Amino acid sequence: MTTPEIKTTVVLASGGLDSTVAIAMELYQQRSVAALTINYGQRHTAELLAVQSIIDYYQRDGQPITHTVIDVSNLGPLLKSALTDPSKAIPEGHYAEPSMAATIVPNRNMILLAIASGYAASIGSDRVTIGCHGGDHYIYPDCREGFIEAADLCVDRATEGQVAIHAPLLSDTKTAVVRTGVRLGVPLHLTWSCYQTPTVRWRHCGVCGTCNERKEAFKLAGVPDPTTYME
Amino acid sequence: MTTPEIKTTVVLASGGLDSTVAIAMELYQQRSVAALTINYGQRHTAELLAVQSIIDYYQRDGQPITHTVIDVSNLGPLLKSALTDPSKAIPEGHYAEPSMAATIVPNRNMILLAIASGYAASIGSDRVTIGCHGGDHYIYPDCREGFIEAADLCVDRATEGQVAIHAPLLSDTKTAVVRTGVRLGVPLHLTWSCYQTPTVRWRHCGVCGTCNERKEAFKLAGVPDPTTYME
Repeated sequence: MTTPEIKTTVVLASGGLDSTVAIAMELYQQRSVAALTINYGQRHTAELLAVQSIIDYYQRDGQPITHTVIDVSNLGPLLKSALTDPSKAIPEGHYAEPSMAATIVPNRNMILLAIASGYAASIGSDRVTIGCHGGDHYIYPDCREGFIEAADLCVDRATEGQVAIHAPLLSDTKTAVVRTGVRLGVPLHLTWSCYQTPTVRWRHCGVCGTCNERKEAFKLAGVPDPTTYME
Repeated sequence: MTTPEIKTTVVLASGGLDSTVAIAMELYQQRSVAALTINYGQRHTAELLAVQSIIDYYQRDGQPITHTVIDVSNLGPLLKSALTDPSKAIPEGHYAEPSMAATIVPNRNMILLAIASGYAASIGSDRVTIGCHGGDHYIYPDCREGFIEAADLCVDRATEGQVAIHAPLLSDTKTAVVRTGVRLGVPLHLTWSCYQTPTVRWRHCGVCGTCNERKEAFKLAGVPDPTTYME
């Protein structure tokens, strides 16, 4: 009897709810995970603290997961967005409103997927997983199915078929993501969603687009929300 | 009578022959050029000196060209290649030989095009130009037509049709690139091709794959080669 080879997935890990559930889905499929966190100059560095605590959680649990953080924050000034420019205000309101367009980082997901796929090709991994979910579609063109399909084709051709792009939450609502997270025992209390820089550590602002989306998702899922909000 | 709007092309500028000819082609089409040089950890920093001298040349000539250099060299250790790892040897021989595979930087062009397209979307440019030429096809999958087409589709979807990828030298031999360069008055003497770190400033090694390709191209084009080679 031979031991089946364990395949490795590179997961883009932001410390948010979606990418953490995506990590859990890969582990559930008996894959090892090479989590990759890319600092592209986004100002919510609370994300980076969150992702480290999530990886620590899984490593203490004995799960096959590594973590690499890469700093390409020099990209920030090149890409116009409220998320990378401290002089611009983060819009408040619902996540799917037109005002949220200020939070678009131009071509962000192609940049992240391209780097992650180069890393995957370098370590012999066959899959890159990104946690885009259905609720992202309204605002972000690079979270839609057509974009993911094109990115997969692009990576397939650049790596001669070695690496594929996987977006397992692409058709799911945020509520469905929360439910999957609960089912897979994801440490949801460690995840970070807020676009604002926290004034008190570990407290979400409660009024930006992603905070509103997070509150709503826990409520609709019928799951206690473990998040501490400022308001 | 109204003055026609001048459109801007973002050109990936490496300081090499192909990308410099690509710059000249955009200027010839009455476009302004936003040259973008991305330091992704490649060890031939002579490229970076070369590209600066080329931009200076065009700016002194009064051409509408800007230059932005971005340092994402933290990517180097993430991407396995002889071009980014100082402990690996640069292969000698002909550019199209299998040994040149050591110079593949996994998914390099998708990373470069993704960053350039994000920059283009940020500055209101409608086109990103990359200088891949026909001779690159043998070794580099991300220089082939199928890849460029997929990258164009990916960028189109991520930017909702704002930015297109342009690769005007994709079907040309290196010899044809040299001829086009001569025809457009390109300062070919300022361009840098060598993969080696020069031991004497401005001298190409003369024995690596790209040096051999460069020598051959000038010879076949019937144009005096302005390059100083070590051997």
